Formats: sequence, structure tokens, C-alpha cells
Amino acid sequence: MGELINTSRSPIRKAVEERNSGYIKEVALRQVEAGAQYLDINCGTMVRDEEAVMAWLVEKVQEVCDVPLCIDSPNPKALAVGLGMAAKGQPMINSITAEKKRVNEVLPLVRDYRAKVVALCIDDGGMPKNSSDRVNIAGTLVELLKAEGIPGGDIYIDPLIKPLSTNDMAGWEVIEAVRLMRDQYPDVHFICGLSNISFGLPQRKALNATFMVQAMVAGMDAFVLDPTDREMMGLYYTGRALLGKDRYCRNYLSAYRKGIFERK
Amino acid sequence: MGELINTSRSPIRKAVEERNSGYIKEVALRQVEAGAQYLDINCGTMVRDEEAVMAWLVEKVQEVCDVPLCIDSPNPKALAVGLGMAAKGQPMINSITAEKKRVNEVLPLVRDYRAKVVALCIDDGGMPKNSSDRVNIAGTLVELLKAEGIPGGDIYIDPLIKPLSTNDMAGWEVIEAVRLMRDQYPDVHFICGLSNISFGLPQRKALNATFMVQAMVAGMDAFVLDPTDREMMGLYYTGRALLGKDRYCRNYLSAYRKGIFERK
Repeated sequence: MGELINTSRSPIRKAVEERNSGYIKEVALRQVEAGAQYLDINCGTMVRDEEAVMAWLVEKVQEVCDVPLCIDSPNPKALAVGLGMAAKGQPMINSITAEKKRVNEVLPLVRDYRAKVVALCIDDGGMPKNSSDRVNIAGTLVELLKAEGIPGGDIYIDPLIKPLSTNDMAGWEVIEAVRLMRDQYPDVHFICGLSNISFGLPQRKALNATFMVQAMVAGMDAFVLDPTDREMMGLYYTGRALLGKDRYCRNYLSAYRKGIFERK
Repeated sequence: MGELINTSRSPIRKAVEERNSGYIKEVALRQVEAGAQYLDINCGTMVRDEEAVMAWLVEKVQEVCDVPLCIDSPNPKALAVGLGMAAKGQPMINSITAEKKRVNEVLPLVRDYRAKVVALCIDDGGMPKNSSDRVNIAGTLVELLKAEGIPGGDIYIDPLIKPLSTNDMAGWEVIEAVRLMRDQYPDVHFICGLSNISFGLPQRKALNATFMVQAMVAGMDAFVLDPTDREMMGLYYTGRALLGKDRYCRNYLSAYRKGIFERK
């Protein structure tokens, strides 16, 4: 999932403020051309007019590309606006949590828009402290979503990544949790962002990339990342081939022929 | 384990032919300084005088460094010569297999020299065809070695790495096998070389490095590699930190401060 259309990134914020649709469209297209299968749309920093900005972003992005969108907001009204306009394939919602308030706000949207949904491992007790907290919260979320008729294949569990710098077991806890959940819920997907893990440490890109490879072994099958980062995408194809998920290494070889491993 | 002292590498072959002990010592020292905990010594290509060459190599290497050696040969006489001279710490033998002839030749050496041993997953039926072949052969080897009083911690199972280019499940089969064996034999170690996996494909270094990271997730805890390859060693420290095996990320941060991530 392409993460670049996010107003917390200053070039996007600037383009939104200037209503520079050309730049937004270019960023959308670049991500799709690089292989993004979903585009995340997040304007959560635009607190005063988030709904209007969401509508504008969804409209502009859909003018140039056909991949489905992931509507990403803490604000259920902004989610509803984005979902109402999302017209390409099955939209995704980022995210539901197991917090009561959030369930009440987001579950109806998941149902009404037949959306895929990121199920983030947080509940009213706060952030998970270890692997088994994650397994428990994810279990609650999966049961709750399935009880509403959401198919397992539409659920993307986000185990919640914390910085390794504050807890040296932060990476392992996620890997262990995904491995356990993968066995327990073979039909659901697992997704995460990659930058939290490296927060506060040097060589962040190396940590993010290595963690992606490790998480794939455990069963993580979706990532929120910058798909125009060739090094990261190259590693993704390499990792999949080595995990036996790339028949005859076709995608790996095709990525190689397209020059993804060439460094400028 | 440092793999560089191997007469299949032409600079080593040349140094051996010229009895250029300076070069051999330099390669030994470079590997130790880069973090090698064992040095593999292999002169299997010198078929006419392998035993004499083994003796010379072991002598010269031990003149400059104190890390224990891994005596690596298909020839039990060369193994015996190397082991007889190995005087630094506990030597290792590379390798025993489950082939009857090899067991008869190597098992007495493991016992007599109280050596650690690489247990390679091959038996009289040939190379393993899938994960469960590996698990079965490894089981035979572990039982056989333990029955001789060899402690689990002295056993290094090598699951046998085959090229991904000839079987697109080759990587996954090893990862799956190690995961299963790790649960079954929590006290033994797992070791492998890294270059076979990428044979016949482009971007071999990327494949080798990614496979190392993946294998570590499954439980592989020893690698036969070139420790002077900073990129590979950087990834090793990164992988360990992310797997929660590096208290306070100390080794990762120390490797960073020593410049291991700097590219020339």
C-alpha cells in the first residue's frame, strides 16, 4: 500500500494548501507505476477542513488511477466522506481498533461500504504490551468483524509496531504474534507500517527493510510503505521469491530486468 | 564462521601452492577481526596432498589467531590430521552426514576429539527432497550423535541449501524445516552456507543476504560466510537486534559506531 499521500508529509501538505492537483496526481501515479496495489489517503493533519480535503484528494487521485483507495483517518466523518466517493474497486478503511468508541464509529462504515479494513491492535486498555496482548486484541477484532459478516479475507490485522529503541523485544513480539495469529486465522491478512520500528535508532532504512523481510517470514503479507523506494521493493520481491511465493521466480526476474536492483 | 580459507578460492590455492603463509595468516586475521567465531579450513581441492596442506594451513592459521577451527573435508584422513593439530578451543568438523560410510568414518573423530560437528542433511537415499526429508534425516543424525554422548549444543544441523533457480520452493523448504526442527530439538544449533540458494540467478548477493535474514527468523543461528563482507555482517547485527537477541541493541549500535553501515 502506497503511503505517500499523507498531509503529514510537507510536500503533500503544501500541494493540498495550494490545491495543486497536478502534484497529487503525479504522486498517485508514481506509486501505482511502482507497484502499489492500494493507495492510502490520509489528511488527518488538516484538522480544520479534513473532510473537504479528503473529498478533494479522493477525487483528484481517482481522476488518474484505478487502484482502490485506503481511507485513513481518526475522524469517522472524514472516513465516511472518503468512502462515499471511493469508486475504484473495494475501498479499505484505516483503521478500526477494539476500543468501544471506535468500534461504534467504524464498524457501520465497514459494513455499509463493504470495505476491507485494517484492524489495529489497540483496545480500551491501551497499546498491547507483548505478543499475547496482540493475539488477544486481534482475536476480539476478528470475532467482532466476522460476526458482522465481514469475510476474513477483507480483514488486515495491524499488530501495532513499537520502536525497538524503547523495547529491544519490540520486533520479536510482532513476529511472534503474527506467527501465532497466522496459524489461528489462516484466512485473514496482516499489514503494518515499517517506520515505527526504527524510531530513535541510526540506519533507519536498514532496520525498516530488514524488519519487512522478517515479518514476511512470519506471515505478514501487506505493507504500508513508499513503493517508489526501489531498494525496499527489490527486497520485497526477493523475499517473496525466497519464501516460495513467486512461481519460477517470475516476478523477481521481471523486477530485475526492469532494473529495480540498479543503484544510481 | 569465516569461509575464506578454502582452496577452491584461487588466491588461497595460489598461496598454498607457493606456501605463502603471510597471505593465509592475513586472511585468517581479517576474518577474526571482522567477527568470525570459527574459521573453516578447507583444502579439499588439493587431492594429491590434502593431508599435508591441511596440516600446513592449521599450523599457519594458529600462529596468528586463537579462534577455534572448523576442519572441513570429505576425506576422513584430512579431518584426522586437522583435528589432531587443532589446539585453540573446541574444534568443529564439517561435516557428518547420515550416510552409513560417512557415519563410520566421522563419528569416531567427533567422539575422540570432543569436536562440535556440522550434521549435513544427506543420507544413503541422497539429498533431501523437501522439508520433511530434512526433518527426518536431521532426526536420525541428532539421535545417533546424542547416543554417542555428543551434547546437543555441539551439534550444528545443516539443512542443505539447494538453488532457488532449480526449485522455487528451495528457500521455503529450508525455512520450514528449521522452524520444525528448532521446536523439536531446542538445544541444537542450525548452520548453513549462503551461496547455494542464489546459484543461477541474478543479484546473488541480495538473495544470499535476504535468505540469511529469513533463516534467522526460523531459528538458524550460525552461518558460513565471508565475515569481511560488511554489508552481510551489518545485516546480521540488524537481524539479531530486530529478533530481540541484542540487549539494548548494544551490538547493533556498536557495529554502527564502528562504521559497518558506511559504504565506500
